[in-house]
Amino acid sequence: MDVFIEPIGRLMNEFSKLPGVGKKTAQRYAYRVISMSEEEARSFSEAILDVKRRIRFCKICGNFTEDETCAICRTRDKSVICVVKEPKDVVALEKLHEFEGVYHVLHGVIDPMNNVGPSEIRAKELIDRVGEGGVREVIMATNPDVEGEATALYLARLIKPLGVKVTRIAHGVPVGGELEYTDDLTLSRALQERKEL
Amino acid sequence: MDVFIEPIGRLMNEFSKLPGVGKKTAQRYAYRVISMSEEEARSFSEAILDVKRRIRFCKICGNFTEDETCAICRTRDKSVICVVKEPKDVVALEKLHEFEGVYHVLHGVIDPMNNVGPSEIRAKELIDRVGEGGVREVIMATNPDVEGEATALYLARLIKPLGVKVTRIAHGVPVGGELEYTDDLTLSRALQERKEL
Repeated sequence: MDVFIEPIGRLMNEFSKLPGVGKKTAQRYAYRVISMSEEEARSFSEAILDVKRRIRFCKICGNFTEDETCAICRTRDKSVICVVKEPKDVVALEKLHEFEGVYHVLHGVIDPMNNVGPSEIRAKELIDRVGEGGVREVIMATNPDVEGEATALYLARLIKPLGVKVTRIAHGVPVGGELEYTDDLTLSRALQERKEL
Repeated sequence: MDVFIEPIGRLMNEFSKLPGVGKKTAQRYAYRVISMSEEEARSFSEAILDVKRRIRFCKICGNFTEDETCAICRTRDKSVICVVKEPKDVVALEKLHEFEGVYHVLHGVIDPMNNVGPSEIRAKELIDRVGEGGVREVIMATNPDVEGEATALYLARLIKPLGVKVTRIAHGVPVGGELEYTDDLTLSRALQERKEL
């Protein structure tokens, strides 16, 4: 990057740490910053620091929050817990404005190939939470991949003995999808889990 | 963006000011920042401020610099001036490590449809520069679009009377391109500007 003067090269380097950002995109971003007003650049710069300063994890569910506990844990129905892999999954579900229970963010899934065991994710915290009582259902909403399935099954096996209902989000053909382009595993699951009309 | 807490929503908003960044990408970027170390986030934030604080325009050519004049204007052959639209065009040309002259960044092209006339770009600065003498060739390297062509022709008409050679970068089929997929205008120019082998 020696064709760039130092401050530009450095900013490009910072931008290329963002997911999916290569040299060319980093350059476009850096040039956009240069053309920003002093005010705009300051506000951008502060938003970055601010997110690091103010964001922490909810003591109960592990989602992002500005306080000890998050707004969802403080205000919603605690008898249903929806278990997800990451905070962004909470966002995806919250956008539906349908679920009225609370969440539990695992911050990962069990993945023996990458040396991630149950103790590396917030599994114990979930069991403790359910053990405290007042929970009537735990919905496993980890991703429908091998690790997500394994994690859901593992956690279900620990929770069921506590007398709590454990459910798994449904698998099947995506709405608007086409059978022809649906992968075999999904199609097979859609068939197995067929419902009477 | 009410499913996001304020600091995250704000950072996403800042990221979406970057070219080509939508909501989803802004969210991915914001989450990456959250997972950065304090140190990394600080360095990112400072690089943004720094670029605004330290970058200015070279008094001679209009390219980005940290000083009064840029390194290219200070050290290179001033008898050949390559005229470009934007600082990023200088980067594209410098990457070749071929051109040994200096640049003149117009910061725009003449575009009557968008009310950009010769006085809105650094046209007078170029004429003054050439008028000072010592220039033997001016290469018009504005983009090969309508506005770029018009700007090149306009500037050429002003510079030629000063007794300075004015050239235009060549148009033609891109190297590695296919005739079948080359647009008509380009193909027509490639034919007109054919060279004897």
